[in-house]
Amino acid sequence: MPELLPRARSSQESVFARMSRLAGQYGAVNLGQGFPSDAPPAFLLEAARRAVGVADQYSPPAGLLALRDALGADLGVDGADVVVTAGATEALHLLAQALYGPGDEVLMLEPVFDIYLPQARLAGATPVTVPLRRTEAGRWTLDLGEVRAAVTPRTRALLLNSPHNPTGRVFTRAELEALVALARQHDLWLISDEVYDELYFGERPPSLRTLAPERTFTVGSAGKRLEATGWRIGWVACPPGLAGNLAALRQVTSFCAPTPLQAAVAAALPVARRTGFYEGLREGYAARLHLLAAGLRALGAEVDLPGGTYFLMARRPGWTAAALVEHAGVAVIPGDAFAARQPAPGGLFRFAFCKAPAQLEEALERLGRFGQTSPVHE
Amino acid sequence: MPELLPRARSSQESVFARMSRLAGQYGAVNLGQGFPSDAPPAFLLEAARRAVGVADQYSPPAGLLALRDALGADLGVDGADVVVTAGATEALHLLAQALYGPGDEVLMLEPVFDIYLPQARLAGATPVTVPLRRTEAGRWTLDLGEVRAAVTPRTRALLLNSPHNPTGRVFTRAELEALVALARQHDLWLISDEVYDELYFGERPPSLRTLAPERTFTVGSAGKRLEATGWRIGWVACPPGLAGNLAALRQVTSFCAPTPLQAAVAAALPVARRTGFYEGLREGYAARLHLLAAGLRALGAEVDLPGGTYFLMARRPGWTAAALVEHAGVAVIPGDAFAARQPAPGGLFRFAFCKAPAQLEEALERLGRFGQTSPVHE
Repeated sequence: MPELLPRARSSQESVFARMSRLAGQYGAVNLGQGFPSDAPPAFLLEAARRAVGVADQYSPPAGLLALRDALGADLGVDGADVVVTAGATEALHLLAQALYGPGDEVLMLEPVFDIYLPQARLAGATPVTVPLRRTEAGRWTLDLGEVRAAVTPRTRALLLNSPHNPTGRVFTRAELEALVALARQHDLWLISDEVYDELYFGERPPSLRTLAPERTFTVGSAGKRLEATGWRIGWVACPPGLAGNLAALRQVTSFCAPTPLQAAVAAALPVARRTGFYEGLREGYAARLHLLAAGLRALGAEVDLPGGTYFLMARRPGWTAAALVEHAGVAVIPGDAFAARQPAPGGLFRFAFCKAPAQLEEALERLGRFGQTSPVHE
Repeated sequence: MPELLPRARSSQESVFARMSRLAGQYGAVNLGQGFPSDAPPAFLLEAARRAVGVADQYSPPAGLLALRDALGADLGVDGADVVVTAGATEALHLLAQALYGPGDEVLMLEPVFDIYLPQARLAGATPVTVPLRRTEAGRWTLDLGEVRAAVTPRTRALLLNSPHNPTGRVFTRAELEALVALARQHDLWLISDEVYDELYFGERPPSLRTLAPERTFTVGSAGKRLEATGWRIGWVACPPGLAGNLAALRQVTSFCAPTPLQAAVAAALPVARRTGFYEGLREGYAARLHLLAAGLRALGAEVDLPGGTYFLMARRPGWTAAALVEHAGVAVIPGDAFAARQPAPGGLFRFAFCKAPAQLEEALERLGRFGQTSPVHE
């Protein structure tokens, strides 16, 4: 047999897919992969049931006009600058292919959402991570000097994510302004992964695009906003004039996003905004965050309170993700899954709290039993 | 601003997207892009309405187990060797990324389905086309000597498509056996695009995989089979042991295919097989083929009768696709859209007949009026 190319030689599952599989295998409560246990809102489901049988054929590669217009109105951009994608994952894949290639470097923050690394490598480029430092108080800080020092003549883009997965860090306007100044100085593209744009617990996170519209690609996700991560409707809001290039490229990667689900999201976006759906989502998640954080602290864990996302990071030396899923019956993501350049602190985990309160309580109870019966392995 | 990479500098719409857009703009009957005017079957729509609200979150990157099993049963392979993709387009994109790269060549037949070329180039490889020759009688013939002569030490794969879009050619078992012998001799991968596997008008087309299971990747499409081209559910049946590699790669390109639509297709595939849905589809399309072919011949066109697909090619010197969409009110695909190495014969077009008989009749009437009132430009 001929060989596969090096870029296809790995057959490793992502840690998210693996932990979900193990959760099923061991009957564990799944606080690993970031998908909600609640169903999507009825107004979205009804819209999908109406769209099926009506909008079933190819749509334009850039997306259904109704969805691009709805996104334009929602994001405050021109719908003509929006390209609809097969989830935010494809959006990030397209941007990697369009913006950097062999010989190029792309800067990203560490802990790093795992998919950014192979996407950069598939594009032929080198991902370079800049560490967020975790303080004793469980706060993750960004040293702008370290970002500046990481820029080389090969750097083509800076990939940001705010609210940041896995730490939940929301970057301040002042931090973003400093990054924009750096991008302008070195003529870098800015990719802003804002899939958690409506999931925050304080002030609304500033959107990078408002500070540098000429060079920022904003990535968003209907799956995260509308609790339907399996629907595969994401988007990119492009700098003016570049949507046509991304649309041409996505003809080659998957031609178009699922048409009936696009039609449903187009109908649902204005309803979500008008009816206060996102406010309700945030209130519900704030309550779950506090339930999980208090429970973990009672079990002796240090908890990093997130400013956004539906994840928290917590440290409990002695636990391992493998032991938790197999023996405690709770699936979580090990901190090392987000490490690239430096190992994560020992005993650090990402917990998803986008799960029903009863599931969170069950997980805490199981962790409590596990903590009492199991030796602590330091 | 920094520049886009060369691979993203084109902002050209595909000819299919463009002709659909022009059809809308000019109120033309759309016999261009290959999507059916009929709704998908009720058993598929009902399954989707049931799946929405139940199967809305991430699915495993290789696909829902139920769908992989249903595909395994339908195709006569092990479900573990099947990877579900965001349409056949993504399947072909993944295979290009996995099987060839910089310095490699991939052989494909010309007229060539347009997306094969940019997919090979995006992978860094060089597409090399081997011509099908059109006889005076409107039959497209494959010269195996020309295929053999096109193989070089850089050739890594042979990309076949049977039934073949746009010509409708179904390759015979003897032709496939000769190509398999060539692939074995030069240790080439075989990619078999069989999205029209259930759309044929004579004998069932032989599947390449049955002749070379060790090296053949078979690409299929629920959109083509079940009349839902916008649902983006495709698949690859891999040689044993390679599904994990493709699944790992597709985590990076779009993570997973739309979950509720996967669930619906999983439920629908056995129903389609059991209830004779495909037989009904073929009967309906055979009637439409003959309606369109007879009508075009009456207008002075040479018609190439297809053995499969829902397209026919017809030649009518003097017509141009631009004039037809704008002045006749009929959108078709110009033969040149499928040309790579050599221009298509003048006045050659691809007509889609996956449209309601009333639409085909309306198109023929419009073409008749156009033919009478417009000068013939040779």
